[in-house]
Amino acid sequence: MRLRVEKVRTLSPAELRLLIRRGEWDRPTPGLAPGYAQANVVILPARYAVDFFLFCQRNPKPCPLLEVLEAGAYEIGSFAPGADIRTDVPRYNIFRRGNLEDTRKDIGELWQEDFVTFLLGCSFAFEEALLKAQIPIRHIEEAKNVPMYITDIPCREAGIFRGPLVVTLRPIPYEKVARAVQVTARYPFVHGAPVHIGAPDRIGIRDLSRPDFGEAVGIRAGEVPVFWACGVTPQVALLDAKPDICVTHTPGHMFISDTLNEELATS
Amino acid sequence: MRLRVEKVRTLSPAELRLLIRRGEWDRPTPGLAPGYAQANVVILPARYAVDFFLFCQRNPKPCPLLEVLEAGAYEIGSFAPGADIRTDVPRYNIFRRGNLEDTRKDIGELWQEDFVTFLLGCSFAFEEALLKAQIPIRHIEEAKNVPMYITDIPCREAGIFRGPLVVTLRPIPYEKVARAVQVTARYPFVHGAPVHIGAPDRIGIRDLSRPDFGEAVGIRAGEVPVFWACGVTPQVALLDAKPDICVTHTPGHMFISDTLNEELATS
Repeated sequence: MRLRVEKVRTLSPAELRLLIRRGEWDRPTPGLAPGYAQANVVILPARYAVDFFLFCQRNPKPCPLLEVLEAGAYEIGSFAPGADIRTDVPRYNIFRRGNLEDTRKDIGELWQEDFVTFLLGCSFAFEEALLKAQIPIRHIEEAKNVPMYITDIPCREAGIFRGPLVVTLRPIPYEKVARAVQVTARYPFVHGAPVHIGAPDRIGIRDLSRPDFGEAVGIRAGEVPVFWACGVTPQVALLDAKPDICVTHTPGHMFISDTLNEELATS
Repeated sequence: MRLRVEKVRTLSPAELRLLIRRGEWDRPTPGLAPGYAQANVVILPARYAVDFFLFCQRNPKPCPLLEVLEAGAYEIGSFAPGADIRTDVPRYNIFRRGNLEDTRKDIGELWQEDFVTFLLGCSFAFEEALLKAQIPIRHIEEAKNVPMYITDIPCREAGIFRGPLVVTLRPIPYEKVARAVQVTARYPFVHGAPVHIGAPDRIGIRDLSRPDFGEAVGIRAGEVPVFWACGVTPQVALLDAKPDICVTHTPGHMFISDTLNEELATS
């Protein structure tokens, strides 16, 4: 049974998770439960967990930790009471030794006693804030995926995890750049303030029209390229480290929490 | 050989650490290397480290993590290049099963291959900022230790670590309370904004004249008690968990980094 999207948009986070748990919603989550924090999901066996925890701690802009669960724990606690990480994500990607092996709506059968779950902030919250501040977001205007670039800035290493910082690009009108910095700085849990403004070549980006991931967007006269740390950064580090097994959300199919973005915002 | 304090106050963080490493400075560190972040130190065997890491992640106001090292690592990296955590703290407390067993100037002999080092923010930075904003700090005026109280607010548990939130009190003139919130909110890595303002009974504090740690200070007419999360919180949780061994700095004898507080401040 396919549910009507307009109806789904009115549901609470707990109602949405129930729908997802029943397998009745396995589509992307942008636009659902507006105002509530959605999270990227990374699940790893305990033997890799400390290194990954360190990697996030050392690279908080691309890897902002919202929650980490004890080994084997699948209940989320106060961040999303009643939620179960084995069933409440619309789609999971299963990687073995760095290769995408399978995509599932449920990982109950795959669950291991030593799985450690990490929830990381995703950029929906800060895009919401930019739009409220009347700052245009080109890839939304053009109905594209945000353009992403691999920079020549190395992340701080942690055990087996290393890799370059990946950034997203949003072209911002010159007169709104300072405001864009201020607005996003309030949301450190979703990448926070930009990591770089203007001069893409200074961070190893040669051609803005050829992003490494996502799609190129138009940059108009009077706009400056502004770069934010991107949640693909830990994905790149994860795949490169080739753990025996690793489960993530399928891109765009996030975990929906009961925590408001404004509860997490600073100042 | 005792060094003259006035001379020591002019030294850089690296020079101070060298002095400390040689055993020539084993006294408290407040006032040294002004502007540079000083850190609380907690060192634990790896089997306790994930739980403690989670405890800090879940209770960032009392336990703001500045740096975590891999198991066995004693070099600090970019936070303090060239530093060695085995020798560069003026005094270490050695706890076994929750009891203070020894105090040392060097833990080279005690070092274990599985020791994990945590560096946590300490409140010197935000007191510096309050003073710059012309906000008086009573315990400094009265040359006392800051008064600390055990609240009835539980920390979020993590594995073997649990316990109450401990807070510090600073009486603030009514007209400066909002400013005190703003000033300290910029320093989330050293406890950030207050956790409670006024009404001590609402957080389980019955008598401000009888702090659980530190010394009582005078509260004048026109002042409101303002409470900040306190770094004693993880100490209480640590001692209660009774790990076989745990090494911390001796109170007041901090690790001095090469990182400026302003580099860590938000906005």
